[in-house]
Order: sequence, then C-alpha cells, then structure tokens
Amino acid sequence: MKKIAIIGASGYTGGELLRILAGHPGMDVRVITSREHQGKPLGEVFPHLRGYNDLVFEAPDYPVIRGRVDAAFTALPHQASIQAVAELVTSDIPIVDLSADFRFTDADVYAAHYAVHSHPHLLAKSVYGLPEVYRDAIRASRIVGNPGCYPTGAIIGLYPLLSETAVDPAHIIIDAKSGVSGAGRGPSLSTLYTEISEGLHAYKVGSHRHAPEIEERLSDIARTRVGITFTPHLIPMNRGILSTIYTTASRTADPRKIRMIYSDYYEKEPFIRLLPDGVFPDTAWVRGSNFVDIGLFTDPDTRRIIVITAIDNLVKGAAGQAIQNMNLLLDFEETTGITAPPIFP
Amino acid sequence: MKKIAIIGASGYTGGELLRILAGHPGMDVRVITSREHQGKPLGEVFPHLRGYNDLVFEAPDYPVIRGRVDAAFTALPHQASIQAVAELVTSDIPIVDLSADFRFTDADVYAAHYAVHSHPHLLAKSVYGLPEVYRDAIRASRIVGNPGCYPTGAIIGLYPLLSETAVDPAHIIIDAKSGVSGAGRGPSLSTLYTEISEGLHAYKVGSHRHAPEIEERLSDIARTRVGITFTPHLIPMNRGILSTIYTTASRTADPRKIRMIYSDYYEKEPFIRLLPDGVFPDTAWVRGSNFVDIGLFTDPDTRRIIVITAIDNLVKGAAGQAIQNMNLLLDFEETTGITAPPIFP
Amino acid sequence: MKKIAIIGASGYTGGELLRILAGHPGMDVRVITSREHQGKPLGEVFPHLRGYNDLVFEAPDYPVIRGRVDAAFTALPHQASIQAVAELVTSDIPIVDLSADFRFTDADVYAAHYAVHSHPHLLAKSVYGLPEVYRDAIRASRIVGNPGCYPTGAIIGLYPLLSETAVDPAHIIIDAKSGVSGAGRGPSLSTLYTEISEGLHAYKVGSHRHAPEIEERLSDIARTRVGITFTPHLIPMNRGILSTIYTTASRTADPRKIRMIYSDYYEKEPFIRLLPDGVFPDTAWVRGSNFVDIGLFTDPDTRRIIVITAIDNLVKGAAGQAIQNMNLLLDFEETTGITAPPIFP
Amino acid sequence: MKKIAIIGASGYTGGELLRILAGHPGMDVRVITSREHQGKPLGEVFPHLRGYNDLVFEAPDYPVIRGRVDAAFTALPHQASIQAVAELVTSDIPIVDLSADFRFTDADVYAAHYAVHSHPHLLAKSVYGLPEVYRDAIRASRIVGNPGCYPTGAIIGLYPLLSETAVDPAHIIIDAKSGVSGAGRGPSLSTLYTEISEGLHAYKVGSHRHAPEIEERLSDIARTRVGITFTPHLIPMNRGILSTIYTTASRTADPRKIRMIYSDYYEKEPFIRLLPDGVFPDTAWVRGSNFVDIGLFTDPDTRRIIVITAIDNLVKGAAGQAIQNMNLLLDFEETTGITAPPIFP
Repeated sequence: MKKIAIIGASGYTGGELLRILAGHPGMDVRVITSREHQGKPLGEVFPHLRGYNDLVFEAPDYPVIRGRVDAAFTALPHQASIQAVAELVTSDIPIVDLSADFRFTDADVYAAHYAVHSHPHLLAKSVYGLPEVYRDAIRASRIVGNPGCYPTGAIIGLYPLLSETAVDPAHIIIDAKSGVSGAGRGPSLSTLYTEISEGLHAYKVGSHRHAPEIEERLSDIARTRVGITFTPHLIPMNRGILSTIYTTASRTADPRKIRMIYSDYYEKEPFIRLLPDGVFPDTAWVRGSNFVDIGLFTDPDTRRIIVITAIDNLVKGAAGQAIQNMNLLLDFEETTGITAPPIFP
Repeated sequence: MKKIAIIGASGYTGGELLRILAGHPGMDVRVITSREHQGKPLGEVFPHLRGYNDLVFEAPDYPVIRGRVDAAFTALPHQASIQAVAELVTSDIPIVDLSADFRFTDADVYAAHYAVHSHPHLLAKSVYGLPEVYRDAIRASRIVGNPGCYPTGAIIGLYPLLSETAVDPAHIIIDAKSGVSGAGRGPSLSTLYTEISEGLHAYKVGSHRHAPEIEERLSDIARTRVGITFTPHLIPMNRGILSTIYTTASRTADPRKIRMIYSDYYEKEPFIRLLPDGVFPDTAWVRGSNFVDIGLFTDPDTRRIIVITAIDNLVKGAAGQAIQNMNLLLDFEETTGITAPPIFP
Repeated sequence: MKKIAIIGASGYTGGELLRILAGHPGMDVRVITSREHQGKPLGEVFPHLRGYNDLVFEAPDYPVIRGRVDAAFTALPHQASIQAVAELVTSDIPIVDLSADFRFTDADVYAAHYAVHSHPHLLAKSVYGLPEVYRDAIRASRIVGNPGCYPTGAIIGLYPLLSETAVDPAHIIIDAKSGVSGAGRGPSLSTLYTEISEGLHAYKVGSHRHAPEIEERLSDIARTRVGITFTPHLIPMNRGILSTIYTTASRTADPRKIRMIYSDYYEKEPFIRLLPDGVFPDTAWVRGSNFVDIGLFTDPDTRRIIVITAIDNLVKGAAGQAIQNMNLLLDFEETTGITAPPIFP
Repeated sequence: MKKIAIIGASGYTGGELLRILAGHPGMDVRVITSREHQGKPLGEVFPHLRGYNDLVFEAPDYPVIRGRVDAAFTALPHQASIQAVAELVTSDIPIVDLSADFRFTDADVYAAHYAVHSHPHLLAKSVYGLPEVYRDAIRASRIVGNPGCYPTGAIIGLYPLLSETAVDPAHIIIDAKSGVSGAGRGPSLSTLYTEISEGLHAYKVGSHRHAPEIEERLSDIARTRVGITFTPHLIPMNRGILSTIYTTASRTADPRKIRMIYSDYYEKEPFIRLLPDGVFPDTAWVRGSNFVDIGLFTDPDTRRIIVITAIDNLVKGAAGQAIQNMNLLLDFEETTGITAPPIFP
C-alpha cells in the first residue's frame, strides 16, 4: 500500500482525488493539506466523504510530509504548485501536479501566459501527463504535469488526425463547452447558481490560457506549428466538457478511412470509447468516469471532419487522469481504481 | 383592436404568442385551436395563463374562423400549416406562419428536406419574416414565413459581414447551442429532465433541416453561394440559443472596421444590441425578450472573425418575431407589445 | 409621471424593480444608487437591462436625492435601510422599504432577531405591506415595510383560515421551498452553481428570521398567539417559493366549506388564483409574475387541511409587491404595471 | 461468482443495478431482459455502460432463465413483477423484487392501492427488504420486496422514534421532495425538461401509493396504528429524496436524549450517517451512494422533533438497497459492492 499526500486537497479536484482513491486498492491517502481549512476533519469540508476515513486537513509542512508518504498529488493554484513540487521532489517521490506549472515544455510560453517559472530546471524534467500520447515518457519520469481539462478533450480528439497529417494544421477550431466545476470552489459572483442556471455564454474568447497549452502539444504531435481557434463556453451543469472540433482534411476525406485512423490509435486504449457512426457523445454518458467518448463526422464534399469528444472535467480532465498517471509512476496497472462506470442520470 | 386567431396554440410557441399578446394593445386573441385539446379552457393547458381570458381551445374549422378574425398566426407542424394557410388566405387576411412551410423560396429545397410542397404558388407569394433584412417586403406581403430559431440567430449574426462581402462565404461554421423548449412540448424520451439535465450533446450533426434554410438566406444576402457547417447542441436550459459563428475575413481583418460594419447595419434596429468590445452575450440576458445580443471578436493575425449571437428561441426565435412581423403586416409600430425587458435571473 | 429613486439597486431585487418599472406607465426611475457600483451605467451591472435607459449608479446622497424624486424604494441590507428611510422620509415622500427594517410592529421582536432598531418612532408609523390583508392601512401610510418572501407565501396561505378561526393556531407547520435568488447576488460558496445544482437541503431549521415575522402577522390576523414550525429549503431553481402548509381544522373539516372560505376572501383579489380541486400550484406557473397560486387539500377524516401557495420570490415576494404597495401609496390603480403574465417555460 | 439475472433492465433502476454490479466482486450479470429492447446490446440503451460487457437484452423467457442464473432482481412494473417472481421462484433462487408487488404484508392493502394480488401465498413468504429494520428476516427469506424510495427515507427516519414510542404515532407529517428519476424513463409530458426545470410542485397530495406502504411498516414498528400525512414534491434534480419529517414528542423532548436514541439504533449501521447537531443533510452529499444521512432538530418548548433524511432514490431507494438485500440472501458481506463514496458535485 503506497502512502499518498494530496497537497491542496480542499477544492473540487482534491475532493475528487479523495473520492476516487477511497476505492483504490494500492494507494492510501495519509496527508491532506489546506491552509484555509487546517485542523478541520475531512467530512466538514466535504460532507459527502464523511465517514470514509479520519483524515484532518493540515498545513503544508513539506519537509515533514516528505517523510510520511511515498507519492504526492499537488493541486495548488498555479505558482504555488511549483514551490510544493520543488520541496517534495527532493525526496525523489513521484509527483503528479494538477496545476499548469508543469504542463509546458517551453518556459517562455508558460511565462507569457502565467508568470516567470521559478524552477525551469524542474520543468525540463517533467512530462506532460496524457498517457494516450506520452505513456512511456510518463512511466520514466518523476514529475508529471497533469493536463488541463480543455486540453485533454481537445488533444485526444485531434491526436490521430494530426499524427497522420490528415488535416490542415493551421485552421483548427475548437468550440468547447464546460460544466461549472471547472471554475473551482471559490466564492464568486460569476458562478453563482443564479448567474449560471438557464443561461449560456462564451468567455475569454481568444484569450484562454489553455489555448497555448493545446497548441504546444498539438505542434509536438504534428511536428509542425499548429494554430487553433479556441472558444470556451460555460454550461449550466456541474461536470463535463464537450469539445466540438472542426478541421479540414488535407487530402480527400473518406469517412471510412478517418474512422479507421481512430480505431488504429484508440481501440486498445482502456479509457477511450469510439462511438459508432451517427452516434455523438454526451457528457452525461461519461459523468464520474475516466472515459473519453469520441464521435466522428466526415463530409467528403466539403472535406470537413468534425470530431466531438466528451469527458468529465474532474475525472479524465483532472483527478482521474492524475491517478492514471500515478498508476504509471508507481507501476500499478494503469486502470487500477478508475474503472467505475459513469453514473447516469 | 384587431381580432386574432392562433391556429395550433397548444405548443410552447402558441403559449408564448398568448403570453406576449396578453399585453399587446392592438391585438386581441379571439380564436385558439388545438385538435388534441379542443373544449378545454386555456388555463388547463397553460396553467400559467389561468385568469388571463376565457378562451377555449376549438377545432380548426377554417371557413368559420376566417370570418371571425382579422389576422392569423399558424403554428402547426410542418405540412399541416400549408393547409391552414391555404384555407385562411382566401379571405385575404395577413398570416404569419411559424412552421417551416413558408420559409423557402425554392420549393425544391423545401421538398428535399421536408416534403413536396402542396401549394407552391403560395410559397411564391410569401416572404421570409426576418424584419432586420426583409422589412419592406414583409410590409408588402400577406403571408410571412417566420424564420426558424437557429436561422434567426445565425442570419442576424452574418448579415452585415456577408452583405459587405467581408468574409469568405464558402467556409462558415455555426456552432449553435439551444435550450430544450426548441424541441417542443410533446412527450419524448430524449427530452426528459433526466436525459437532459447535467449533460450536453450535439445532434443531427451535418443533417439538421435548419442548415438549408440558413444557406438559402445567406446566399440571397451574399449574392453568391454560401456554404455552412452547422452543428446544433442541446443545452440543459429552457430557453435560449447561442450561436458561435466562425468566419475568415476575405481581406484584412481590422477589429475596428468590423465593428463599424455592425454599427452601420444595426444601430437603429430596436431589437439588436451590439455589445462592447470584450463583452460576449449570454442567453440569460435576453430571456423572455425579443432581443438579439451580439458580441464580436476579430483576430487580425489569423483573420478569424468570431460573431456570437444570443436570442430567446421562443421569442425572437419564434413568437416575438412573429408578432414583430404581424405588427408590420397590420401597420402597427414594429415594436408594439414586444418591448418588455428580459427577465433575469 | 412620478419620479422614482431606488436606493440599493444593484441586487436581484433592485434589478427586478428596474425590470418591472420599465413597463410602468406612471413611474419613471430617475435615481439608482449603489456604493459598490457608483459611476457604472446600468447595463454594466445588469446586462439584461442594457438599452432601457441611461441611468448610472450613484452614491446614496440622500439630501440631494430627496429633492429629485417623488417616491423611493429602499432595498438596502437590514440596518442600512433604516438610515435611508430616516433621511428620505423628512421630505415626506412615500417609501416602500424592502428590507426587514419596517416589517415589525414590535421593536423588541426586531431587536431579538436583527438588532436594536435605531428609529423605533418610524417603526410605529410604518405599515406591513401585504395589500391583501392591510390594503387600507397601506393607502394611508407613508412608510411601508415590504413583507419578506417566505412570509408573503405563508401569510396569504393562512389568512382566511386564521381569520375565520378555522384551524388550531398553535400547531401550524410551514414547509417552505425557495429558489436561490432569495439568497441575493453576493459572492458566496454556499450558493455556487456547483453547490446547489442537483441537490436539496433544509437550512436554518428552527432559527430562520422570517419565522417571527410570520408569527407576528398571523397572531395579529388570528387575534391570538399563533405558533408555527417553519422549515425553509433551498431548491435548485432561480425563482419561486412553494409553501406547503399543514394545519388541523379546529372543528370539522368540510372540503367544500374550506374552499368557500378561500373564495370569499380572495375571489376579488387581482393577484390571487385559487386553483380548482385536485390542482396544486407550481412555482413555474407564476414565474416573473405577481401572482399567488393556491391549492387546497382537506381530509375530513384526519381534519388535516393542507394549503399550498406558490409565488415568485422576486416579484410577489419582493419587487412586484413593492410596486403594488407603491401604486397604493401614489394613488395608481393597484395593478398598474404588474399584470404581465408569468413566463413559461 | 454468482450468476445474476435482471428482469426488466431497461429503466433507470435497471441501469443502476448494472452500474453498481459492474464493480461487485461476487455477482456477475448474465441475463438482462426487456421486451421493448430485446436484441439490442446494452450500450445502445444505456450509452454510459458501453464497453462494460457484451450483454444483449433478451425476452423474459423464465423457464430458460431459471436454469442460467443463481439469483434474480425483478424490476418490472407493478403486476408484471408478480408473474416473474412466481415463475422464477419455482427453482428456489433468491429474488429481490423492486416493484411494489411484495412490499405489503396485507394483500387487501395492496389490492386497495394497486390491484388484486394474483399470488397472495407468495406475499406471505416475502419479506420487506429494509435491512436496518428486518435484517434477520431478510437473511432467512427467498423473496424480498425491495422498499419504495419514499418509504426508505421515511421509515429509516422514524424507526428509532417509533420503536421507542418517543413520538405521537397519530400525527406524523412527512414532507418529501424527490428528484425526477423516480418517475422512470418513459416518455411523458409531465417530466420533460421544460416542464420540470426551474419549478417545483406537490403531486398526488393525499393519495400517493407510498403512503399505505409507509403506514403499514410504521405500524408494525410502533406496534400500534400509525397515521401519516404524506406530501411528495417533484424537484428539478435527477436524483435524491429529502424527507422532512415533523413529529411531536409523546413525553418531554430533550435534544440530547433524542439524539442518543438515534445513536443507539444506527451507530453500527454501515449506510447510515447521523449528522452532528446543526448540520442537516443535502441529497447532493449522498448522490450515487447507498447512504442515508440524518439530521435532527428538537425543540423542547414545543416538543416538536424534526427528522430530515436524505437518500439517493436510485441507490438506497432502489438498486443499492436491492443489492444490499441480495448480499444478505447470498451470504455476502452486506456492504459488498456498494461502498463507493457519493459523487459531488
């Protein structure tokens, strides 16, 4: 049984790590930290987890924590995570970081959209935690930058097409729709029930920080500069991201062949479900699970290929994928503890 | 006071016509029909309207109805509306039809997506009821084909750009998101609360019947063949359509100039609100009203122009626009009875 | 045209006053105040009202405001409203206060549940603004304490039974269910979309401050001490309060007679709709309107009488009722400006 | 590994049995039946379960099914279940029936609210499947009538008080609020998203068929005739039942003693969480789990005791409890396969 710390455990991502790990046969959460809630028992902050264990939130005293655990998830705000990882990594334990701090290869790109990276040498040692693309590198690393929620849906949707240079890399449109849990658990006017319910809007049009993350990864996959237009929307639902991705085939667009590309890449992937012709994913069908559901539409006349992916932003888009990565880091079977079916309705 | 009939008044569109007309100073609803509910008082079918009048649903006996009213809204299913219009128009009263039966200029296009049109000569006499584009023709007509809900948001979003040949007409993407009332009031598994709530999906990808309607109109506006990719999504909310429209500037894309085009076309339009730079519409801000809110984003580097429009699908997308059209047909001030502000939250 | 000020206009209640007054033929809003938002145009704080007028939020400078308006709505937090009313009332303009500050006859009760009342002499001059019960007194007053949202639904539900001493006054149970807008527009963890959606809970069990307000009024109506058990619940919806009220008949319980009592009291009331036998109200049927819908169930065997009332908490439970009161104060027809039908769905 | 049949597997309850059993180490679903969907693979009817197994819906051919399984869940409509149980029980396999057909001890009560019971001798052999009350009898039986969703929340809330004769048994009020999944997966106008969302209403006031079920059980527990007033409400959420139960203490009402009664009865129960003083349950905190959360409020002055319980209607109110019962019937640990934490948000 591996002893686990969750640094920054009081947000929705932390809660989800705790929920899923409650059923993991090889990981045992021993430390949960929260400056705001230190001293409070778990069930007071997350009433749904009342009764699962007797954990109490503590302050993040890294030198002490290092000695008590075999691995750590860090789920702090951007910038704070760098510090946590830097402190914890000295004991050489595997770390999955759920902030943006270890998602970029290029420190300048990180700096342009977040802040100057205080530990760029650690950046160089970290790996982007999307197992479907970077599985082997993840296994060999100690620091994994867990992908953003939007990037997960977008990259998995585009990986086969761009790897096979099947689409024009310069003009990709990603119209993404997210549930509200992606905005976190902080008090806020803009995510009040009354401001969100029964409405729908785009936000950060042309300026969301997940766009450069997606572009850096897709460019790596395509081995050429990929340009995207990324428009996120906020949907009145708790969980889920649907990404409707518009591409143009670089050659002829044969629906059968496009589908075959996806089969080739994904049929052995345990968390990817390629839906049949004419069936398109619904976020409700992946809720609570680590699945990515994919639907395809190819129009030979216009050479338009539409790829639609659905994930649970808190699971495959955050905590579930983090555990998938940690399974790789700790040499567990990759699917351990994250095979529970979606919950519907 | 003009005496009004609503043919097919028991759906959400019929209810919305009744709701809005309850406050219209120049129209008095005298006849409401419904085969299913004939004999029932209004308040039994629409409990929210209990107490507003003593109307009782009746069977659609057109020869009798013709003599009792000065104008009619027809809100029957596609095909049934043609017959109703054909019967009513013999008395030369103005008619606004809310089905798809009079939205097409080309009977072949209608036939390809709906059915063979039984009265094509009436089609030739009808006008597409989007006042912001076809105001004068509407005033001069007797039969108005009220636009579909998706087409309303899409066409108003694209009209200035295409009129000014400012964008490439061949590659327009319309990613549309609709509330559930657009699916009507019939019992159905797919629109049960439990199937819709907390989820999101695209439907009729590449095959929605509003696509040819949009294309026919946009081609007319652009004076050239316009090709669109149209993807509708179903959102867990009652009302509202958000259309996120992706275009590519045909020349350079100067944000200031693009905005000026919209100002020129729309600043005098009573129901269009062009939002300031950096503000994007939310369907919650137009709920219950006849407004179209428009947000613009122009990226000079990629020449990408994103236009986002929000409407209430039951108001500007159906009943409100129908009344706007009827105001024109009956020589009322165009805004009469449809100026109530949106209701939020 | 009466010139109107809304003091504290940036909350949901303020927005609702502005929405409804936009269609009022006799009141013209000239002043809106907000310390937080002073200097901002209306449409920036309430995007749904963009385009309705050119009002700008200003600081509450009462001596100046007094001279600019004929009447005022005060919608400040409890305690702050007292001061506003005290300042404004010196110019003898009619005031409807939407806080709790003028809802109590007994300053000690107010003190026990809110704070020591700084202007008890004004309390003595104020009237409880429930027109269905206190219409004549309201007409004769200058300061109206607009009822709380829960009390409105509860008192209107119980007024006929208690006036007629038809039920045991000592053991009344009010199980109330409210939409989230009742919690206001302040940033807050507990009313985030994610905390509210898809869940349901009771709150302030045995300790909600609307209980003493209800008890004081009901005791006044019943001319004896009335004791209630009041349990509010928070429902995942924006608007609406459903009050399920359990009473025990003091004598025999004849369904027909109980219904007749309600008819006698309410058949002439313009905003009360007594639903037929077997029909029970839904908050969706009163949304956006000033209606109170009432359903009745009487079981002769157990002498249990269940009264269920539905209101829109922001309209009949706040802004609509405030305008109803102001109509009385300014000698308008009581229903002026508040007759728009509910909006459904 | 026990081989399991689910008779009538295409409703929400069937889907939930399949979801939970996917993780059960000792039960293997081999047969799923549905007349409507026979021949379809599981993933077509329940897209969220795509990929979990290769089950195909089949027609309910009981003689054949009997030989293929070790135990059966029957989840057919009332009346149809009797027949299924009668056919299956001949092979002496344990059966948990999720309809109302085996919930009543008294065939006359069943007849009064459902229909004449065609196999009353089987009724006599069945046990009411509420393990917290009837655990030993369940273990010894072959046919378990799984409790209704409302009765589960109500009876668990009242069991300690009535067992201890701590409250007046004649005047108990149960104000219950349910999510929409309780209404099933059939096409229906009244449970459309648009009819349910943003609204709230009571239904079947004074006439819901769960009332006699609750009364029969509570009378058995209290060893005297218990009379309840039961009012169900429909809430715009998928899952969950909150029961707000109003009782009057038969003697003095000491909050500490009342709480101690609950501790005595429930502290060893694995699925009951007694919340601390001042904390009241939310259905969101039990979503997807088999928990019953209980909050208590006792007012010594009025002797009013309020008990609030929250369950997931599809889990503890249906499929989870059925598996709990089946664990008892098959001699598994009672909690096997149903310990996953709630999912929040």
